[in-house]
Amino acid sequence: MPARASGRAADALRPVRLTRHFTKHAEGSVLIAFGDTQVICTASVVERVPEFRRASGGGWMTAEYGMLPRATHTRSDREAARGKQSGRTQEIQRLIGRALRAVVDLDALGPRTLHIDCDVIQADGGTRTASITGAFVAVHDALSSLVAKGLLPRLPIADFVAAVSVGIVDGVPLLDLDYSEDSRCGTDMNVVMTGAGQFVEVQGTAEGVAFSRAELDRLLDLASRGTAALIAAQRQALGVPA
Amino acid sequence: MPARASGRAADALRPVRLTRHFTKHAEGSVLIAFGDTQVICTASVVERVPEFRRASGGGWMTAEYGMLPRATHTRSDREAARGKQSGRTQEIQRLIGRALRAVVDLDALGPRTLHIDCDVIQADGGTRTASITGAFVAVHDALSSLVAKGLLPRLPIADFVAAVSVGIVDGVPLLDLDYSEDSRCGTDMNVVMTGAGQFVEVQGTAEGVAFSRAELDRLLDLASRGTAALIAAQRQALGVPA
Amino acid sequence: MPARASGRAADALRPVRLTRHFTKHAEGSVLIAFGDTQVICTASVVERVPEFRRASGGGWMTAEYGMLPRATHTRSDREAARGKQSGRTQEIQRLIGRALRAVVDLDALGPRTLHIDCDVIQADGGTRTASITGAFVAVHDALSSLVAKGLLPRLPIADFVAAVSVGIVDGVPLLDLDYSEDSRCGTDMNVVMTGAGQFVEVQGTAEGVAFSRAELDRLLDLASRGTAALIAAQRQALGVPA
Amino acid sequence: MPARASGRAADALRPVRLTRHFTKHAEGSVLIAFGDTQVICTASVVERVPEFRRASGGGWMTAEYGMLPRATHTRSDREAARGKQSGRTQEIQRLIGRALRAVVDLDALGPRTLHIDCDVIQADGGTRTASITGAFVAVHDALSSLVAKGLLPRLPIADFVAAVSVGIVDGVPLLDLDYSEDSRCGTDMNVVMTGAGQFVEVQGTAEGVAFSRAELDRLLDLASRGTAALIAAQRQALGVPA
Amino acid sequence: MPARASGRAADALRPVRLTRHFTKHAEGSVLIAFGDTQVICTASVVERVPEFRRASGGGWMTAEYGMLPRATHTRSDREAARGKQSGRTQEIQRLIGRALRAVVDLDALGPRTLHIDCDVIQADGGTRTASITGAFVAVHDALSSLVAKGLLPRLPIADFVAAVSVGIVDGVPLLDLDYSEDSRCGTDMNVVMTGAGQFVEVQGTAEGVAFSRAELDRLLDLASRGTAALIAAQRQALGVPA
Amino acid sequence: MPARASGRAADALRPVRLTRHFTKHAEGSVLIAFGDTQVICTASVVERVPEFRRASGGGWMTAEYGMLPRATHTRSDREAARGKQSGRTQEIQRLIGRALRAVVDLDALGPRTLHIDCDVIQADGGTRTASITGAFVAVHDALSSLVAKGLLPRLPIADFVAAVSVGIVDGVPLLDLDYSEDSRCGTDMNVVMTGAGQFVEVQGTAEGVAFSRAELDRLLDLASRGTAALIAAQRQALGVPA
Repeated sequence: MPARASGRAADALRPVRLTRHFTKHAEGSVLIAFGDTQVICTASVVERVPEFRRASGGGWMTAEYGMLPRATHTRSDREAARGKQSGRTQEIQRLIGRALRAVVDLDALGPRTLHIDCDVIQADGGTRTASITGAFVAVHDALSSLVAKGLLPRLPIADFVAAVSVGIVDGVPLLDLDYSEDSRCGTDMNVVMTGAGQFVEVQGTAEGVAFSRAELDRLLDLASRGTAALIAAQRQALGVPA
Repeated sequence: MPARASGRAADALRPVRLTRHFTKHAEGSVLIAFGDTQVICTASVVERVPEFRRASGGGWMTAEYGMLPRATHTRSDREAARGKQSGRTQEIQRLIGRALRAVVDLDALGPRTLHIDCDVIQADGGTRTASITGAFVAVHDALSSLVAKGLLPRLPIADFVAAVSVGIVDGVPLLDLDYSEDSRCGTDMNVVMTGAGQFVEVQGTAEGVAFSRAELDRLLDLASRGTAALIAAQRQALGVPA
Repeated sequence: MPARASGRAADALRPVRLTRHFTKHAEGSVLIAFGDTQVICTASVVERVPEFRRASGGGWMTAEYGMLPRATHTRSDREAARGKQSGRTQEIQRLIGRALRAVVDLDALGPRTLHIDCDVIQADGGTRTASITGAFVAVHDALSSLVAKGLLPRLPIADFVAAVSVGIVDGVPLLDLDYSEDSRCGTDMNVVMTGAGQFVEVQGTAEGVAFSRAELDRLLDLASRGTAALIAAQRQALGVPA
Repeated sequence: MPARASGRAADALRPVRLTRHFTKHAEGSVLIAFGDTQVICTASVVERVPEFRRASGGGWMTAEYGMLPRATHTRSDREAARGKQSGRTQEIQRLIGRALRAVVDLDALGPRTLHIDCDVIQADGGTRTASITGAFVAVHDALSSLVAKGLLPRLPIADFVAAVSVGIVDGVPLLDLDYSEDSRCGTDMNVVMTGAGQFVEVQGTAEGVAFSRAELDRLLDLASRGTAALIAAQRQALGVPA
Repeated sequence: MPARASGRAADALRPVRLTRHFTKHAEGSVLIAFGDTQVICTASVVERVPEFRRASGGGWMTAEYGMLPRATHTRSDREAARGKQSGRTQEIQRLIGRALRAVVDLDALGPRTLHIDCDVIQADGGTRTASITGAFVAVHDALSSLVAKGLLPRLPIADFVAAVSVGIVDGVPLLDLDYSEDSRCGTDMNVVMTGAGQFVEVQGTAEGVAFSRAELDRLLDLASRGTAALIAAQRQALGVPA
Repeated sequence: MPARASGRAADALRPVRLTRHFTKHAEGSVLIAFGDTQVICTASVVERVPEFRRASGGGWMTAEYGMLPRATHTRSDREAARGKQSGRTQEIQRLIGRALRAVVDLDALGPRTLHIDCDVIQADGGTRTASITGAFVAVHDALSSLVAKGLLPRLPIADFVAAVSVGIVDGVPLLDLDYSEDSRCGTDMNVVMTGAGQFVEVQGTAEGVAFSRAELDRLLDLASRGTAALIAAQRQALGVPA
């Protein structure tokens, strides 16, 4: 496979770093790096559920996403100052929430809410996939702390989950796009997969020309390989062998 | 294939109706029905472009989406009264805009903006896919009117575009889900395709259990068949043979 | 009387059409047309009352109004996207609510709320008067459905109610102004009246020159005639003889 | 005529006081009292016009209205803190603006805007009619100051304008309702009239039972008498004989 | 000491006027004037406490601040129309609330809230210090009315509180700056003090050059003198000897 | 002096760490730690000035402040999601901006704006003083980069600036309060000082009992000592000897 500007192979991830216990207050707190992309992911336990889950006896999990104004090449407006979250922000935080809910047994969580916060402190492409991958580790830590305190009998987690971006740049399918690749990319796809290799989300968009079924297949192959490697990194960080 | 509650085959669309010139002011105005789902799609020409396109000399196209409060089983809040659009609304209108921009040559449009408005007056599943499919016809009419007035030398449309939902309900892959199917569905996917059978968007979500590569493949097959039939319906409504 | 651009007599209404059961989910759903002005009016029953009515044991009724962005000659901003309803919108929806509350016995409604939604899909003058006239039929249908289900012993409606605009154009008092008349009009008045010929609202505004008592009297005569004809149309649509 | 709780005759105004030059910065600044209702009305000259008037070469005039939170019996929320103006506030400020624009020649105003601010410091019914009546005097002062500075050749005011409320309380038509009357009132009407006795606005609402043409006529008689007396008070305050 | 533009000595206050019972509905209502600065201060009793005080059994006190749009030299936007309070407004109303809470025994207030509203009707510098000084008198009246009605056994007020601005203008420390002094001032300080001469708030800001410890000391001396005089004026207005 | 829970002396700072070039995009990027309080401070150069500075030819500098939702013991709402910044946030960011503007020569900056962003990733008391102290280093780096690129002839910085909190806890004046001290503290003061030992801001608040002039003097002594030590740390981090 041809090398990229960074020297990476087309099917190689950027270096992944997972730093647990990054800040001290949250029940789960992880700094994840996909190369130069860095995201603080925290999972906070709140002993309360939203109205629509109250009758169920079970819990809820929701996610929010943000970027520091100067996480990017040029400064973007602070969403708190503008008074509203962009459509892009809302789309991403809805995606993170759905991805994590796919592997957590909310009914076994008891009447509590897990709040996931993913805050990008440095952006270089792939912030949403790094957020999902880091948030899983933070959620694992937060839920383990509930088990350790005797508040839950067992970890209500059905499987691991991780996400990666893939795309076609200058006709070549690439794994884990950085910003310079992402901005030249014809087709961009974010894929969320479980430890069992099943799909949770597939979101592919033709930015320029539409893509063929064969290209789609090749991108899904790359994504499977990438998420498997990310889940291995999560296992190692958590000390949970496969 | 097993029949559904509605008696439809698993790979059958609901009856599609496209009513052009539905309202009188818009340059393009279409009422589209996918069964009981009904959406008014208008395309409005405005002789102005947003700041970021000004230097280009070309045009722009953007979409907005809304639902009448009682388009649904129970009344939902009016977004104008609540003072903000939901994340779901923003996600859908961003999707519609991307889908249509994939087939319109904005550089050939001249310094004008096409505003697409998709307003759901009755909802029974598939409102976003009906919106995209109907909006294409409205855009075609609006751009044809510019050609007819001599404002454009030729139609700046590269291909047709249509969208359909597919999903796995009780283990069975189904085409074009209605509301009752959508609400019981394990995996839900919206697919946007061109007349040439290429993909513009693939958005698949596991609502409950994650899905396998084989299931994904089967859903993509159904979606290809469905969008081809929708594009045939667009051609017939517009009187444009393939 | 002199004919108008449309050929109508000065004291003639535009053709009125009332289509009941226009959409399927709402308890009352009516498409009303005053000529080219078309409004979808729905009445939704919600088994809950606002705080300030809770102690009373009775019900409440409230109205919201909107226009599709391209209901008008040139596209107007979507209020949901702008994040607030205009003063004009609020004024109109407050008027609709007051007009309907004047003829419905809220105390006899039980602890439920009727939400009226009037959404203009095509505008050619008189959208607020068409909304009131159509909303009455939708409310009648919604309340009749409660009687039919045994939830109310009898229809809590004291009288019919309808509304019409009148105005002075080029010195001539006219009934039921269309958009071209409305925009050239010196004095514009909206009048809401009951089946008994009593006044519920009189809202007259001198857009240019102030108007005399004699002119006001002539406009009120026209409005009485117009609302009587509209109430006859409501009766016919509902199959309720006078 | 029967006396009211206050001892006033049914056709009597409350004592009217107009204090010019009430605050020092505004070009026109008037404290108006209708009995216990007190409103500060200022007219501010700004050398700029809104976009839609720019091509015309003429000016613009607009009004805003507010109430101090404890102007009323019980404290109401501060609109600035809630982050939006109520529908009632918007309705009133639109009414004030239209009423004043009816007598000011905006084309003769030059490229400047008059901002009218009506702030209720104590409320006892009739705040919108007091606002219009006081605002006219403030506008007269502000425009006179432009004439005095040589910025305008003559006062661009076509006539005086004033407003009063009338209503039917316990079956008796009354002029200039105070709060206790207003809250028991079956029909409530605000009438804006010129010095020539012509109507600018008639806004009548049946709060409870609908009203007859005869009652409407009686209320209009009272309103004519009331506005004539208010215009006499304006003339006296301004030292402008009829 | 050198005289100022106004002829005042450097350590002299502007004339202070306190008008109690300025409006009729509020439990406490005071018009305070510091020279040409005029503020209406009301204290409203509401028989309810915010959530976070509910368990305590005690009460709460909070303040809001506003300016009429034309209280100033040039008209400023109405915050209610803009839809948000400025940072300056929020800073001031937080300051007023803290200042008053320092001398009122909230635990002895019972489960009720005092709402303080300070509305500037004419501004000439020192609006926040006039607000605090006037609000104390309004609060004293409101609490006295509760004692008079037997709702409180004794006045839950520990001490008087007043505020004044001091600053360095052209190198000279001055007491109670008016607008023209404030806008030329290098250092600006607002000081809130009790009847016992203790500090509640010290807020000093170098607008241009930083200030020395000696200058700070001199400003604190002036502020002590000024607040003592203001508290004497409060005592006189309330008829409460020291 | 008595030791504190942490073992620190009453007049001792917590360990201060300044990490320059913490993120890669901003012209200045600093992670500052005051003990467990950690703030990312960036300074971004934008080649544009706000309207009110355009005529001057000079530049502008402004600051924004935020906290990650789980920077604190319990999760707080995300301000971007709530749609507005709290009064506290606005107060802090206004303070940071004023503090930095006191030592930067905006006229010498040319027509560009420095945007300071202070984002708290972990909070343990003193976030606003850490923000100011770290922001100075970020601004120094950003301005140095402009000098290095030849865009400025010399560094437009007149002096260093740093900030520290002081307070009285259980009667003892303490320097640099951590969260547990801050929450038990009777008087809380934030002091901003220059390298020359002059005051830029003094903000002291009695949370419980008012404080005496002697206590104020003692707190100012502690603050002078603390800011001098912080400025020494800034000098060391920047490699700029005194």
